[in-house]
Amino acid sequence: MCVLPTMKMDPPLVPFAGTDPDGLDFDRYNPAFFRHFERRVGDLRDIGVEADIILFDPNDRGYRGFANMGRERDRAYLRYVVARLGAYRNVWWSLANEYNFNRAKTVDDWDDLLRFVRQIDPHERLLSIHNGNRMWEKGNIYDFSKPWISHQSIQHWDTTLTTEWLDKVGKPAVLDEISYEGNLGRRWGNITGQELVRRFWECATRGGYPGHGESYVNNGDRAWLSRGGTLYGESPSRIGFLRTIMESVTDKQTLRYLGRHQPATVSLDLPSRPHHVEVIDTWNMTITPISGVFEGSVRIGLPGRPYLALRITEQEN
Amino acid sequence: MCVLPTMKMDPPLVPFAGTDPDGLDFDRYNPAFFRHFERRVGDLRDIGVEADIILFDPNDRGYRGFANMGRERDRAYLRYVVARLGAYRNVWWSLANEYNFNRAKTVDDWDDLLRFVRQIDPHERLLSIHNGNRMWEKGNIYDFSKPWISHQSIQHWDTTLTTEWLDKVGKPAVLDEISYEGNLGRRWGNITGQELVRRFWECATRGGYPGHGESYVNNGDRAWLSRGGTLYGESPSRIGFLRTIMESVTDKQTLRYLGRHQPATVSLDLPSRPHHVEVIDTWNMTITPISGVFEGSVRIGLPGRPYLALRITEQEN
Repeated sequence: MCVLPTMKMDPPLVPFAGTDPDGLDFDRYNPAFFRHFERRVGDLRDIGVEADIILFDPNDRGYRGFANMGRERDRAYLRYVVARLGAYRNVWWSLANEYNFNRAKTVDDWDDLLRFVRQIDPHERLLSIHNGNRMWEKGNIYDFSKPWISHQSIQHWDTTLTTEWLDKVGKPAVLDEISYEGNLGRRWGNITGQELVRRFWECATRGGYPGHGESYVNNGDRAWLSRGGTLYGESPSRIGFLRTIMESVTDKQTLRYLGRHQPATVSLDLPSRPHHVEVIDTWNMTITPISGVFEGSVRIGLPGRPYLALRITEQEN
Repeated sequence: MCVLPTMKMDPPLVPFAGTDPDGLDFDRYNPAFFRHFERRVGDLRDIGVEADIILFDPNDRGYRGFANMGRERDRAYLRYVVARLGAYRNVWWSLANEYNFNRAKTVDDWDDLLRFVRQIDPHERLLSIHNGNRMWEKGNIYDFSKPWISHQSIQHWDTTLTTEWLDKVGKPAVLDEISYEGNLGRRWGNITGQELVRRFWECATRGGYPGHGESYVNNGDRAWLSRGGTLYGESPSRIGFLRTIMESVTDKQTLRYLGRHQPATVSLDLPSRPHHVEVIDTWNMTITPISGVFEGSVRIGLPGRPYLALRITEQEN
């Protein structure tokens, strides 16, 4: 959730005192805004949801001047926000949304602000920064190996790259934006539920944390992504199903996701101890045990559909 | 089509004289083999099909010794094959399948052999060389800008890269292997018809030439890929549909493929002359005109399904 409104947004409250958008006073804050914001963070805490609070947003483009307030005002703003919101135990910090779209700040500037948050936050909340980039490029991702970063916060559509990011940096990878299920005219907002669910499985079974969003328009209300409200998509129930599987997985189990492939058989190279194998249909949300007990090099018949996963369980003695 | 059999294949005829596989004489050829091969090339010519003849195959792995016959025998073999088969007007040369899997030859060796074919072929047939690589890598593709190469012959699953290859080299790009529709246990042989058709459209609308293959097993005969015979897949009819569209496209028309995206509307920035727009459902093989005449910046409603394309036609005066 963003503290600062994006350019054309016209929210009832903004974080600074003065007249929005033309007469804001960047040296004074708006307590009413922060009281409201704190209540919403508290609401999320109460239903068990983490709040990834985005401190800067580059998409102001000079409209209110948030993208380039100057070094001292940036720091004063961070001191105020971190002091007020940092007390909530479900708070994470994202220093910026799409940081590399901000032309007033360099990576050195972002590094400086990240170190500053690390210094003033007595609670040591999770801290990262979120890239923007043309979705087909791997460049422009922040160097998350820097010591003040607690986790990778990545915008990219190709969730099979999760393995690469985890190997490279060795910190948890949150894939905030892997495109949204919807029918928006923008390429990041119009994939099918089936495709979004596939990206979730590719990410999660590799050890990453994918993010959901929905952008269906023409349902009588604005897209969920902008305003919340009702979800119309096909993906949420399947993501719930994936979650139950990820939460119940034991250290005797392996998940192997087959994605868009539809092999009639799959070869497994199992340790020489007995295993059970189940076929998970990730779209139809079914789990079907394969009869038999398997060990060593085995070949298993599959139903020949895409979007399947295998759950392989070492049998207890 | 390969001249040399791959390791474990056991064809009734091979190109060399002697006893197959252990007693082959690499200095003498088998005229019966070449008479048969020529007839099959002629059959293809008669039905209007080009024959991309693969001269070397690295997957011998020492079985018959084809991968490392020595420089002079390689050249003698090329002289014989090019002299016999080069006369057929539907012949293209592919110097090797998956050349980079051959450990006995370097890129310099391949360059030398490619130049040699160019030198001995009086018909100047199309000439390229086909890479093998782990399908998620872009590396290991031959430098097709070299002057003896007539076209790019590429193995890669991601056909959206066609644009990049065309921009980089400026020679036609044939994507021979973009995975096969089927249910084989190997990752290159078990994508759905829908996914293969998507890859075809992504390639063709970018100006590339994609290749089809099918690898369904358990239909009572071996996979089409190995033996020919009956096609069981869902993609051939859709590829036929794509072909009719590509063959009928005029210089007043533009195709825009939307792939997996399902926008409810699409914005077009047309020249300020009247245009017709049709929605092509690439999977259901329908073409639906959108009522109205469009020019300049317009927004058009779409049915909100994936796998659509737009055909935009400038109206004749």
